[in-house]
Amino acid sequence: MQNRRIVLASRPEGIPRPENFTIVEAPVPELGEGEVLLENQVFAIDPAVRGMLDDVKSYMPPVQIGGLIPTMVLGRVVKSRSPQFKEGDFGRGFIGWEEYSILNPGSVAFENVTVDPAIPLTAYMGALGWSGITAYVGLHRTGEMKAGDVVVVSAAAGAVGSVAGQVAKLRGCRVIGIVGSDEKAAHITGDLGMDAAVNYRSAPDLTAALQAACPEGIDLYFDNVGGRTLDTILPLMRPFGRIPVCGMIDNYNHQTEQYPIRNLWQVLVNRITMRGFLAYEAPDMLHEAETQLADWFRSGDLVATENVTVGLENTPDAFIRLMSGVTSGKTLVALNDRVTTLG
Amino acid sequence: MQNRRIVLASRPEGIPRPENFTIVEAPVPELGEGEVLLENQVFAIDPAVRGMLDDVKSYMPPVQIGGLIPTMVLGRVVKSRSPQFKEGDFGRGFIGWEEYSILNPGSVAFENVTVDPAIPLTAYMGALGWSGITAYVGLHRTGEMKAGDVVVVSAAAGAVGSVAGQVAKLRGCRVIGIVGSDEKAAHITGDLGMDAAVNYRSAPDLTAALQAACPEGIDLYFDNVGGRTLDTILPLMRPFGRIPVCGMIDNYNHQTEQYPIRNLWQVLVNRITMRGFLAYEAPDMLHEAETQLADWFRSGDLVATENVTVGLENTPDAFIRLMSGVTSGKTLVALNDRVTTLG
Repeated sequence: MQNRRIVLASRPEGIPRPENFTIVEAPVPELGEGEVLLENQVFAIDPAVRGMLDDVKSYMPPVQIGGLIPTMVLGRVVKSRSPQFKEGDFGRGFIGWEEYSILNPGSVAFENVTVDPAIPLTAYMGALGWSGITAYVGLHRTGEMKAGDVVVVSAAAGAVGSVAGQVAKLRGCRVIGIVGSDEKAAHITGDLGMDAAVNYRSAPDLTAALQAACPEGIDLYFDNVGGRTLDTILPLMRPFGRIPVCGMIDNYNHQTEQYPIRNLWQVLVNRITMRGFLAYEAPDMLHEAETQLADWFRSGDLVATENVTVGLENTPDAFIRLMSGVTSGKTLVALNDRVTTLG
Repeated sequence: MQNRRIVLASRPEGIPRPENFTIVEAPVPELGEGEVLLENQVFAIDPAVRGMLDDVKSYMPPVQIGGLIPTMVLGRVVKSRSPQFKEGDFGRGFIGWEEYSILNPGSVAFENVTVDPAIPLTAYMGALGWSGITAYVGLHRTGEMKAGDVVVVSAAAGAVGSVAGQVAKLRGCRVIGIVGSDEKAAHITGDLGMDAAVNYRSAPDLTAALQAACPEGIDLYFDNVGGRTLDTILPLMRPFGRIPVCGMIDNYNHQTEQYPIRNLWQVLVNRITMRGFLAYEAPDMLHEAETQLADWFRSGDLVATENVTVGLENTPDAFIRLMSGVTSGKTLVALNDRVTTLG
């Protein structure tokens, strides 16, 4: 059986380009004792992977030239020599852009996903998967959110931001989303129920636009972008404001020339807590997050915005569009067209 | 009875100069019901006051031209019409550069200070006062210090830093102090027992010097200065590192042209918690801090480094020297020469 995999051909500079990636074919090896063979169903395409394509220290090791591009995968077990998984089970793990994967669930992180037939498989890779869990943990744990907070979310039409904005609303906050187009602005206020949107690209004065949207200041800024937006928001924070730092997409494309932050001393002026986090480092909160998000999804209170590309060969293109900032919601790749009906 | 007071004559640009201050004389008014008359004994001179001399928003309102320069004062009650204080009591409050003060302890923050005759009065304004309490709260509460942490303290020969470095040592940490002269380096390792010192002025490469001193990275950075030092330290932090932000003296003199921080995304890379704090906002920890610091002082484990100037008229000069970075330890002004023997 042949496997197709996408590997790093050359290191991107700035926004990745198609020639940075190449498809290679290789036979799927024999299954060893304790291993499972996965037919991969869905890839979650995440901006954080961009940081791993540079040869610099980050919270994940860099990908080598010729190496598989890593990504979160939802796979279906088609053969099992592991006691933990049987044929037909679904599981989620950080694997890579390939059609089939072999792994040992006892030695690498690979979690069983119990699939509700009423929920499309793709949701488990977006709003009900790590994007949604990240939004939930970042607001509740890292951001110490409480009802009545004025919450600003950047990249508010994005995978994490779109869930963060909705969850903050469901918890009784006033929510202002920052987005990069009028379409996204209409989407987050119209479809997702956020209170207001600020288009950072068209606003002549971002500070003034945010002040108009948050005349009493900001209690919680859910930061997905870093850079200029963060620097603009720092002086608008209220005393004891909290900034959970979920992503700094602004930096992923510009690691060598980072935006200079000039307002950091507002951390002292307003006794702000700024804290980087990764959701999987809050294991005690994961079950609560998954259960609550699925409940909201079933009741229709939580909308999962997704853009799904079909086919392994289209994965680099989906990643490039994500890093160019033109997408809304969770960027996913479906490895076959049964995915949204499976479950 | 005449009072002498020092008021703001003009707003300083950068480091203050003598002509920014002027002495005015005025009669001490009659004591009203509920008020006390203080003969002021000691002023604590604090860099944070610099921020109040500019006409910008900070955590304290700006001083107006002609306004009394605010400062923490230890005063002795010489007349009382308040039920809370009797003649001869000592109290500490945020008042100003003046010889006598009248205030109503019921309506402004003015705390009774129980003076131990075995401890000089000046210590209650430095290592055992708000500087020491700030160091204690910043390490234990804001910085979540634990034994074994690698702790870096900037302005480590300063009022807060000199106590922070000693307290971290007493709690079982390895402590590296950053200072601006070889004399200060010798002082903090020799007299104060810190493990190593880095002179940021003479080190040809501050990153390399800090890496040599902390080869395994930094768990806790007690930030008194902000700016370039903070930016240099961010990439050296270990995962889950903590940065209690106590002061950003680098910014007090340069509010309009702030040092651009380029490494802030390390907050995400290493899941750093960065948090501005003011010690008085941790009221539940104040008693513990005062008691523990006094115990360490009596046992000789905590050295109070002070530089004491005598006389109201010399107060601006003491402040200017502090803001120029040439002093070590707590900068204090004694209003009379009995201060160090009183108690």
